[in-house]
Amino acid sequence: MFSDRFDQLVQALRILPSVGPKSAQRMALHMIMKNREGAIGLAQALTEATDHIHECTICHSLTEDDVCHICSSHERDDELLCVVESPADVMAIEQSGSFRGKYHVLGGHLSPLDGIGPEEIGIPYLIQRLSQGKVKEVILATNATVEGQATAHYLVEASKHLPLHITRIAQGVPQGGELEYVDSHTLSQAVHNRMRMK
Amino acid sequence: MFSDRFDQLVQALRILPSVGPKSAQRMALHMIMKNREGAIGLAQALTEATDHIHECTICHSLTEDDVCHICSSHERDDELLCVVESPADVMAIEQSGSFRGKYHVLGGHLSPLDGIGPEEIGIPYLIQRLSQGKVKEVILATNATVEGQATAHYLVEASKHLPLHITRIAQGVPQGGELEYVDSHTLSQAVHNRMRMK
Ligand SMILES: [Zn+2]
Ligand SMILES: [Zn+2]
Repeated sequence: MFSDRFDQLVQALRILPSVGPKSAQRMALHMIMKNREGAIGLAQALTEATDHIHECTICHSLTEDDVCHICSSHERDDELLCVVESPADVMAIEQSGSFRGKYHVLGGHLSPLDGIGPEEIGIPYLIQRLSQGKVKEVILATNATVEGQATAHYLVEASKHLPLHITRIAQGVPQGGELEYVDSHTLSQAVHNRMRMK
Repeated sequence: MFSDRFDQLVQALRILPSVGPKSAQRMALHMIMKNREGAIGLAQALTEATDHIHECTICHSLTEDDVCHICSSHERDDELLCVVESPADVMAIEQSGSFRGKYHVLGGHLSPLDGIGPEEIGIPYLIQRLSQGKVKEVILATNATVEGQATAHYLVEASKHLPLHITRIAQGVPQGGELEYVDSHTLSQAVHNRMRMK
């Protein structure tokens, strides 16, 4: 529109999730007109983040160090290990405040048709981690999708020989969810997995 | 969450219009996990844009050169001048495809309570521009807000002594609406139905 570099900025903003052409334009104009300092700060933050953030060597979540702050914490329960598909899941569980153990990030789920088998999501490394004997309970928190379920079931099989409790996060009707808007499959699972109250 | 630089990136993304804490987090994670190349490209585009984009010396819209591509075009009608509040409005009118003249960007509107008088939005410079005699019609396309209307009326008064037609973009732009958010068709109609003010 105004110049090549303006158009390039609009284009570059399109990498952001759920940012279409109109909002990319609005964002570019907002920064150029009203917040150049913020734009320069954002450029620096992007450079710093892409330069320094990488996988934790232990849990494969994100960190700037060799080992992330959760893996290196002495206040987290070493005996509880929560297995998730991605760092986004670590973030979601941390923000729920419901877990004080440690994590293991697979980096995906089993998907044989896409050539993603146990090796590709580091299951041998997870089994090795579990074999060290510190962990007493593994909480499988892979997604409640077909692939996430298959991955959870595979992990149960693959760790059968180890002296561990293995649990799966509960599946059911979400908090505040009204039954008439919950999909049939979820509802059917919720009835099947009903819990005793008395 | 994962590290200081991750949190700084989330914070830096908050400068974008209508990006709250949750979507900033989602954006940061998306870039770090799935599109580092895109993130580096965005950082470069931001640096390039903030380094090179500035006001056109003639119309005060945005350009990388001394004079913008609209001001320097020989295919645009020199006798028609459209006065707008901001470069966002130039963008909106250009995208409506309804105007083939030139522009003048005020950089705001009169707002006496905020200490913004005629000098602050460069009205003397606009009058000087009009006095050169090239322009035959001024189209006032300030916003349809109270301040935009007051600015338009002020401009009619301030240019009373000049041999010019002065028009105001027509109704069709909703009352209180800001130009940059109006759809192209409405805007195109409004330019077409512009009404004479002097
Ligand atoms: Zn870690
Ligand atoms: Zn110009």
